[in-house]
Formats: sequence, structure tokens, C-alpha cells
Amino acid sequence: MSVEQRLARLGLQLPKPPLPVGKYRATVSNGGLLFISGQLPLFNGELRYPGRVGAELSEALGGEAARLAALNVLAQINAALSGFDRLQCLVRVDGHISSAPGWTGQARVLDYASDLFSEVLQGKAGHARAAFAPPQLPLNASIELVVTAAIAS
Amino acid sequence: MSVEQRLARLGLQLPKPPLPVGKYRATVSNGGLLFISGQLPLFNGELRYPGRVGAELSEALGGEAARLAALNVLAQINAALSGFDRLQCLVRVDGHISSAPGWTGQARVLDYASDLFSEVLQGKAGHARAAFAPPQLPLNASIELVVTAAIAS
Amino acid sequence: MSVEQRLARLGLQLPKPPLPVGKYRATVSNGGLLFISGQLPLFNGELRYPGRVGAELSEALGGEAARLAALNVLAQINAALSGFDRLQCLVRVDGHISSAPGWTGQARVLDYASDLFSEVLQGKAGHARAAFAPPQLPLNASIELVVTAAIAS
Repeated sequence: MSVEQRLARLGLQLPKPPLPVGKYRATVSNGGLLFISGQLPLFNGELRYPGRVGAELSEALGGEAARLAALNVLAQINAALSGFDRLQCLVRVDGHISSAPGWTGQARVLDYASDLFSEVLQGKAGHARAAFAPPQLPLNASIELVVTAAIAS
Repeated sequence: MSVEQRLARLGLQLPKPPLPVGKYRATVSNGGLLFISGQLPLFNGELRYPGRVGAELSEALGGEAARLAALNVLAQINAALSGFDRLQCLVRVDGHISSAPGWTGQARVLDYASDLFSEVLQGKAGHARAAFAPPQLPLNASIELVVTAAIAS
Repeated sequence: MSVEQRLARLGLQLPKPPLPVGKYRATVSNGGLLFISGQLPLFNGELRYPGRVGAELSEALGGEAARLAALNVLAQINAALSGFDRLQCLVRVDGHISSAPGWTGQARVLDYASDLFSEVLQGKAGHARAAFAPPQLPLNASIELVVTAAIAS
């Protein structure tokens, strides 16, 4: 089953991949690696689930934000590679979760993104991971995912 | 026109590339990638524009700090590659902007760095980008740029 | 002298490399690079030296935390490559040090990790480096190291 078929079966629709709003690129592919710009929980241009997990947002809503940011990562890969055939695997996922002071469950929120990647990409989902707990993110986003993938060159 | 000629035409001078002050390297080149240590707004060893954007610093001064940090990135590339001929392109720029609570304009400050790279490197400037909003940075710097570039090997 | 012999001579024992606790991998190797998940100061599953440097922790204890996180990095490399023979060098070390407000000595704490890498890996230790000063980290850890290494493919 293709990635597209799994997305459909899971009832998931890729958002429009956010375009760069400055002199950078949404993605850069070079030497077998695809470098993807930081992805926020945007849906077709609108920021969803703003705020800090553990304060304005529950862990469950933080998880929804993580899933949406992960879908944007997939949308960027899809746009860069015209599908997922050339994707070998994700190699690194850094997850920055806007966090209330003293709240330390960042890994549980980031699991929502890792689980989504696993469901959709299966054998191509494997990634090294790091979670961070900043007190705020640009645009008051609740999560930012910075992902690098390996691609067939 | 060469990168050096564009720097001169723009009236820009590269600072001395900061030397490592511990057991690490300013840059590591391996397998077609150049990994550059985090660059601060240093000018020949002196930290400029300290503090948080949105508090001690205006956005415009934060932008000047971003340009200076970007010039240090260029200085490191120049030192590592003995010029810019072997540079293929920037591939990833992570911009950490020391930020007052509630100030969310990090992308606008990071644009100053992306614009400088675009002016100086033109077709070699393209990069995936991520902005972050920490409440402080080492040495009370206002910005830190972590850049990876692709090079001809 | 091998890396293993140097570890023994320095009286250092590698901790058990932490297993992923979600749908990600401790390490991913691809195209000559080894991507290592963020490493905390864990010793066989137990977090040591929690808190912020400059508040709950002194710089010296922060340095011990940095050394322990660095040993976990080495343990992950050892597990991924079945030893250190295939390791070419570290290429990037990002050090996130949980920091009290106004404390700006992150580089000094990260030096403990760089020094350990240098002692143990010698010519293979060289790395580009960046230090960060977040107010907290997942699990209330005092340091997180995110390392990428080059390997013989």
C-alpha cells in the first residue's frame, strides 16, 4: 500500500505545504538529504492550537498540534519529491514544544508526531529524535518540528 | 561577479572568523557537508547587540545582530574553504533569537540574515530555515545562527 | 590505543545506551552519517543531576551532567556501530543546557562534554558546536546533547 493510500485509509488529508515567506526555501535537497524548514501546526495558512502545553493547552491538544505539524512535514516532502517514492526514511526529528514552567511531558506530546509518521510512512518513518521545552515559539505556536530526511538521489 | 566582489560592492567586510575556545572546531567538513559552529553577533571578538529582542533591543537592532551573525557565518565558510568557490549552497539555517516574553516576530529578525545571504551568495543562498524564541542565549547574545552548507567534495 | 582501551585507562564505563521509548530510533545511519537521538544525563535509566545550572546545580555539577550525557552519546555510537572502528568523527554537537535566568556560562559546561570526547576519541572527536540556554528541558534534565557523526559507509 502506498503512502497516499495509507493517508486515505487513515482519513488524513495533507494540508497545503506552507510557502516560505522570506528569502529561504521550504525544503532543500542535496547529496541524498532533504532539509525541511521548521513546520508549525498550520492548516492552509492558519495557525492552530496556539499557546503553551501545560498552560493554555492540554497534553491532548498539544498532541493534536504535533500531528498537524507532522502532516505539514509530510506535505513538504510530498511537494519536494512529487510524492513519497523517492523518500528513503526520516533521519532526524527535532521537536520543540512550547511548555509551561515545570511541565516536563514533552516526549509524550512528540510521540503523537512519531506515531503519525509511523502509521503513514511505516518502514520509512524511523528517525532519531530530540525533544525540547522552550517557553515560547514564533507566532505563539505550540510546537515546531525540524526534520531531515534521506532521499534516493 | 564573485562573492568577494559582491561583498565589496555592498560595502560589507567579513569579521575575523571566531576561533574555537575549547576542544571543538569552528567548522567540520565531511562527505559534501560543511557543519558550522553556532555563530553569534561578534565583531572581531567583541559581542555586539546583547540582550533580548522585544525588551532590551528593538527589532531593527535585532536585525543588525542577525546580519552580523550572518557575516560571521560567511567568514567561517571563507576560512574553511579558502573562499566561496567550493560552496554549493547553504542547506539549513537555524536562527535562535533571544526574545522577550510574548514577542513573536522572530521570523522578521531572521529575515535580515536570510536577506544578507541572498544578497551576497545569490544562487548559493537557498536554505531551509527554522526560527526559535529562547528567553536567553550564551553570553547574553541576541541571536545565534547554526548553519550547515553543501560543498563540492 | 583503541577507544575501548582509552575508556578503560580513563576509568570510564559506558552506560547502557537508552532505548527509544516511542516510535523512533536511538540512532539512524544513512549515507555516511549517524544521527543520534538527544542524550540526557541518564545512568542505566535513571536521570542524574536534574535542574538548572546556575540555580539548583553548580557549574561543576552541570559539567558532570555534560560528561554523563557525552558518555551516553558514546554508548549509542558503540551500540549502533558495534564499536568505534567505523566512526570517522563527530561532526556536530548541539548542547542545550538548562539555565537559570541571567546565567551565561553555557560554553564552560559544554566544554566538559567536548573535553571528554577529545580524551576518548582523540582524532575522531572534532566537532562543530553550538550551545543553548533554555530555561528547562524534558524530564527536568540539566543538559541534552544532540550529536551527528560521520561514519565509514
